[in-house]
Amino acid sequence: MEWIEVPEEGLTLRQVRAITARNQSESEAIRQRVEHILQAVQERGDEALKEFTAIFDGPFLDSFLVTEEEIDAAVAAVGSDFMAVLEEAAANIRTYHERQVETTWMDTFRPGVRLGAKFTPIQRVGVYVPGGTAAYPSTVLMDIIPAHVAGVPSIAVFTPPKKDGSVNPYILAAARVAGATEIYKAGGAQGVAAAAFGTESIPPVFKIVGPGNAYVAMAKRLVFGTVGIDMIAGPSEVGVLADDTANPVWVAADLLAQAEHDARAAVFLVTPSRALAEKVEAEVRRQLDELPRRDIAAPSVEQYGKIFVTKDMNQAVEVMNLIAPEHLELDTADAEALAGDIVNAGAIFIGPYTPEPIGDYFAGPNHTLPTMGTAAFSSPLGVYDFVKRSSLLQYDKEAFEAVAEKVMAFANVEGLQAHGLAVKRRMDHE
Amino acid sequence: MEWIEVPEEGLTLRQVRAITARNQSESEAIRQRVEHILQAVQERGDEALKEFTAIFDGPFLDSFLVTEEEIDAAVAAVGSDFMAVLEEAAANIRTYHERQVETTWMDTFRPGVRLGAKFTPIQRVGVYVPGGTAAYPSTVLMDIIPAHVAGVPSIAVFTPPKKDGSVNPYILAAARVAGATEIYKAGGAQGVAAAAFGTESIPPVFKIVGPGNAYVAMAKRLVFGTVGIDMIAGPSEVGVLADDTANPVWVAADLLAQAEHDARAAVFLVTPSRALAEKVEAEVRRQLDELPRRDIAAPSVEQYGKIFVTKDMNQAVEVMNLIAPEHLELDTADAEALAGDIVNAGAIFIGPYTPEPIGDYFAGPNHTLPTMGTAAFSSPLGVYDFVKRSSLLQYDKEAFEAVAEKVMAFANVEGLQAHGLAVKRRMDHE
Repeated sequence: MEWIEVPEEGLTLRQVRAITARNQSESEAIRQRVEHILQAVQERGDEALKEFTAIFDGPFLDSFLVTEEEIDAAVAAVGSDFMAVLEEAAANIRTYHERQVETTWMDTFRPGVRLGAKFTPIQRVGVYVPGGTAAYPSTVLMDIIPAHVAGVPSIAVFTPPKKDGSVNPYILAAARVAGATEIYKAGGAQGVAAAAFGTESIPPVFKIVGPGNAYVAMAKRLVFGTVGIDMIAGPSEVGVLADDTANPVWVAADLLAQAEHDARAAVFLVTPSRALAEKVEAEVRRQLDELPRRDIAAPSVEQYGKIFVTKDMNQAVEVMNLIAPEHLELDTADAEALAGDIVNAGAIFIGPYTPEPIGDYFAGPNHTLPTMGTAAFSSPLGVYDFVKRSSLLQYDKEAFEAVAEKVMAFANVEGLQAHGLAVKRRMDHE
Repeated sequence: MEWIEVPEEGLTLRQVRAITARNQSESEAIRQRVEHILQAVQERGDEALKEFTAIFDGPFLDSFLVTEEEIDAAVAAVGSDFMAVLEEAAANIRTYHERQVETTWMDTFRPGVRLGAKFTPIQRVGVYVPGGTAAYPSTVLMDIIPAHVAGVPSIAVFTPPKKDGSVNPYILAAARVAGATEIYKAGGAQGVAAAAFGTESIPPVFKIVGPGNAYVAMAKRLVFGTVGIDMIAGPSEVGVLADDTANPVWVAADLLAQAEHDARAAVFLVTPSRALAEKVEAEVRRQLDELPRRDIAAPSVEQYGKIFVTKDMNQAVEVMNLIAPEHLELDTADAEALAGDIVNAGAIFIGPYTPEPIGDYFAGPNHTLPTMGTAAFSSPLGVYDFVKRSSLLQYDKEAFEAVAEKVMAFANVEGLQAHGLAVKRRMDHE
């Protein structure tokens, strides 16, 4: 891990961005291939989708829709023990997300003036679920349940089939538990295209969420506008803010839990305690050797592991707020009070018994979080991502007449005479 | 206007999208020029910003920051009558947006398990304000006030200077009324670059909102990721849902108020009444001739004006929901009840005395709204665009131990052993 001695005057946003930056150059070659796939699916629908699925995933499918029988078989394969874990996690996620539901309102602001906001679920959404080694049932729960709680009437999952035409049973089981209404064997850029544009057999969606590889991320970026998308997630990261009271064995284990996700995952320790920092670094080295996913975690720690040593805890908080980490663990004597000083973080894990994996799987808050410093301006995935607002406005005749002159004055200043006329013709009772 | 006779079985989303589509191809030439400008400002800061401002806007500036004296002079130039109108509009906008404020919470979900959400304003935002003929003080209010209500501590306006180095006084006056903390004479792609990356004299922001021309829109798209952005707004549009009780003179005036914005603005009348449709069309023709901005409104109405005649009001609502208009006027006998059936619209104007210009200027709800059918998945600009959430999680020792086995089971299924170890080492009291 790289050591950064934070100077007396602190670090600037620009300096912190440079220290925490990761490679994420988008390839022009990927863009061109994805554009080709999107266009083909938009023009030739199911036929193109079948071709690309055969080329990239293996099977030549008659139908993309996963049957109820396939889902039943997946549930049996997963087994009742893990189904119970899935159900309990889903219940926790649902309970937390129900706190995010907002309801339509309309009130009288002045006599004759009624204003409000109407909340409507997006009418159909697509949830992308990666296949292969990155098939995480927890992400299936986290991406579908907020849509379900929002009341989205139609939630379609898109996921690549395996060579034999089947889908990972954990994905199918989690999708059923979470409340998906359909599951399609369609992945990659072609799956995103089918979701955005629709085909003969797949109705289009209005928004696409969920993680994916570079092709999926590029496809989402290119269909943005036609449909809504969630964030384009970068590699994962954790920041640990700790003092002398922290257990260095646990801090090291938490850093490595993040590092094993991705060779480009980043792990940050920010602490005023040089003694703790030294112990944690030694522990990371020791524990790395015991890890099955050492080959992923080691390059992450080497390239993107940073230890910031600060003059005091105030400065440590300042640095952490500039990092704006996806996951933030507070492992200090006064962790709960310290949470109040955090302005930028996707999720804040308070105290030594709230390691990040608790939030990944079980606690309830969403694990789809803003990465790469974007927590400075964006939020975890939530019910609010699956609901949109319409403003409500209603003036009666008297209230309208009371403001007519002022509206016309505004229209006049902005040179929009037809705006003024829309008011004036009503005043003239034309 | 083009007439669409809606068939017995209605229209599909794909058909409606084809009917309501507008040209908006992004030019590759614009992309390249904007990329050049962004890179130059990122690398050379103020020097590059000065050069581009001289080239595109005229003046060679010593300093970008508008002084308090310049703002005082602008307020004097605007005059106390219009200042009073601005203040009253701002008060209405503020009152409505205060309803969108959410507060941090943390609750005990189970013994030893505390969860919550922390709401923090984005720490610094940039508001882009176009110059020239599109200088609208109403947009200045609508884009700044939600940020101010959200508690954003630092709100910087970016706007192009005129040739003489001054800024439109209505923009300066509105920015002061709305609560801007700084105003910079920096527009176009170079203004967006200064906001996103910062320069020696301008600290960077975390999010950029506000409308602009094709260069500004492209620049926002390209800096997205480094900073957050609001939507990329397309040309404006209105849909009017009307029956025989509607006044055709007023409906026509409202369509033209939208059409005068932009030759690519779109106006939609959806009605089961052929008689009303015919009267409205004749009125549009008559009123067009009286309009000062006829040259803008006429091509809008001719190319993008559509009249849908439906078999009944239910079908009219279905069609309107597929259009998902930015502005929706309900001009029917039962307008208030009908609002309940609308699932896709940016803002809903209920009844004959709520013409769209009331919402543009005065009522309080935001006039920055999703265009081009994106109301199917997005919302008006609001306080929520200037606040982000951090999830809060806190487990105590007993609560942690109660779920440890299940978290390890999940980690095991997903093949993430370091996640399991972060839990196990705590159980082993290592």
